[in-house]
Amino acid sequence: MTGADREGSRSIDAGEYRVIIGAGLRYDYARRIVAAAPAYNYVVITDDMVGARYAEPLGVDLARHGRVSSYRIPAGEAHKTRDSWARLTDSMLAGGCGRDTTVVALGGGVVGDLAGFVAATYMRGVPVVQCPTSLLAMIDASVGGKTGVDTGAGKNLVGAFHPPAVVLIDVETLATLPPAHRRAGLAEAIKHGVIADADYFERIDADLAELLEARPAAAAECVARSVEIKSAIVRADPRERGLRRTLNFGHTLGHALEHVSGYALLHGEAIGIGMVLEARLAERIGVAPAGTAERIGAVLRRAALPVERPRSLAPEAVLEATRLDKKARGGAVTYALPSGIGGMAGEERDWSIEVGDALVREVLA
Amino acid sequence: MTGADREGSRSIDAGEYRVIIGAGLRYDYARRIVAAAPAYNYVVITDDMVGARYAEPLGVDLARHGRVSSYRIPAGEAHKTRDSWARLTDSMLAGGCGRDTTVVALGGGVVGDLAGFVAATYMRGVPVVQCPTSLLAMIDASVGGKTGVDTGAGKNLVGAFHPPAVVLIDVETLATLPPAHRRAGLAEAIKHGVIADADYFERIDADLAELLEARPAAAAECVARSVEIKSAIVRADPRERGLRRTLNFGHTLGHALEHVSGYALLHGEAIGIGMVLEARLAERIGVAPAGTAERIGAVLRRAALPVERPRSLAPEAVLEATRLDKKARGGAVTYALPSGIGGMAGEERDWSIEVGDALVREVLA
Repeated sequence: MTGADREGSRSIDAGEYRVIIGAGLRYDYARRIVAAAPAYNYVVITDDMVGARYAEPLGVDLARHGRVSSYRIPAGEAHKTRDSWARLTDSMLAGGCGRDTTVVALGGGVVGDLAGFVAATYMRGVPVVQCPTSLLAMIDASVGGKTGVDTGAGKNLVGAFHPPAVVLIDVETLATLPPAHRRAGLAEAIKHGVIADADYFERIDADLAELLEARPAAAAECVARSVEIKSAIVRADPRERGLRRTLNFGHTLGHALEHVSGYALLHGEAIGIGMVLEARLAERIGVAPAGTAERIGAVLRRAALPVERPRSLAPEAVLEATRLDKKARGGAVTYALPSGIGGMAGEERDWSIEVGDALVREVLA
Repeated sequence: MTGADREGSRSIDAGEYRVIIGAGLRYDYARRIVAAAPAYNYVVITDDMVGARYAEPLGVDLARHGRVSSYRIPAGEAHKTRDSWARLTDSMLAGGCGRDTTVVALGGGVVGDLAGFVAATYMRGVPVVQCPTSLLAMIDASVGGKTGVDTGAGKNLVGAFHPPAVVLIDVETLATLPPAHRRAGLAEAIKHGVIADADYFERIDADLAELLEARPAAAAECVARSVEIKSAIVRADPRERGLRRTLNFGHTLGHALEHVSGYALLHGEAIGIGMVLEARLAERIGVAPAGTAERIGAVLRRAALPVERPRSLAPEAVLEATRLDKKARGGAVTYALPSGIGGMAGEERDWSIEVGDALVREVLA
């Protein structure tokens, strides 16, 4: 699945497209964008943090191949809205972009989701190339083809599946990512180890110092293995009917904590706490051996990530928030739970395990 | 491709889904919706013209199978907007609809396009069942999976391909369609005859009186043949890279006339005029025999459809409007032109024929 091309980058098969990972790959973005999604117009969408560093050189390179326009949105989840989407679309229309347009998403998860949704719906769909610059976007959002925006009712409630033409990852861009965001990204990498690969879990633990410093070699290893794991799962279940639910480990309680915190917790921080709490659930109902939660918590603590529910977030509020997505079904909340480090439980129940409120209250206490 | 099921309805294979056509099929909508797209929530989207007649009985029938909510938009293209889309989406979210929701589009083209786009983007896509009630929506919008909304810059500029789970057509609903809309719908049926089937073209001409009165037997024949023709073309070229362009016959000048008229011309009226003018172009450049435009015009006139450019629409303005879609390419405007009645020209040029401005001015004069 993984191969090294002549520049020493890796190329991973993510099903409908490839994910290319390398150090310094950004100097080669334009050539690779043009190869994967040739167009008359290239539209680079970025944010005001990433754009200042990386968008201009890319624009110059792309201008040798076609018309280029660049749009910057303010950084942050608050701007991943239908309004931003409509404004970007209108700017592209006013700029004369026809169907022969390729959108390039250069930034973190917000840029990727938003620009991806612009591309998915522009004249019923134009190609998008994803160039993620945050660790979370590299290992999570880059695989699966999900795009979308938030509404007042919640995150990612409006969107589309729109696989990119290619994903280009330059691990050197992690050097300019704030350390808190690097740590938060690692929580998802740790999750990939827990759900699918105990050796990978151990390797993250061993390489933690280098990963926290965003050393290119260690980062490239980590991103590649996470992308492989997520790709294999998504290819086996593209529409989230079964196996893909295992990727939700840590996310049922994690999302609830994130929501109740008013998004003061970073996604990765919330997911880290969620993994520890959900691993405790797995131990209590007997699907995972004792010590699983402690083992996950130990790595997270070494990565300086939180592992306990912040006291300001009331257990009842968190429990209530887990029901938000499901209220329409009136059913019990289900969890994706590990069978230990490196595997998941509940295959016979489509990887969804119902857990009663009493037990959830216990682990939240 | 066509078969009659036990109730005497026809079922046509449109590739990813089936189109069911029958007289009185609406009494069986609920059962067929539930069979094709079972869900916990059923959301019926309609407009205030169609809704008053057909939405309530459908809601009652569906309520036996799940939770039902109904939304009515004001009739007319002016409401096919991102705002309507966002409001419908927010209403569904507030109503507690989760992923386990099927959207039912009950109405003409505006309802189908808008409700289809709501479904395409709701939680990254939920199923839609199309129940078109106008002739144009039955024979045109029902096939191809296009959904979308208009923006200030033009029609259908934002949207997605989102094939329905099934299309249910009750030709009896044509009885309540205003006669001008029945006539306008026939223009697209005539187009299908011109581009693909001379016998069908003749049959429309012979059955014109019955079609204009919306007699169920004649209407079912006509809708079925048009759906077959369009389905065969769309299946051969789902993403509009070649053959599907033949469906644009009459539409390059037709859209321009519609646009310059400020949408005072109905789509089908504009397309009728567009077909006559574009057939003249085909005669002038020698791809169609003399008399082709006259033959098309004769049928349109018998259907009481206009065949000449309204004097109020200046030729230069119309010519200018043909360039709107294409300005980004800086290239010449291309046309899909017939080789006579029953076939198209220009296969070797991907069915796109460039025509110089001078000739277009001549036929517009």
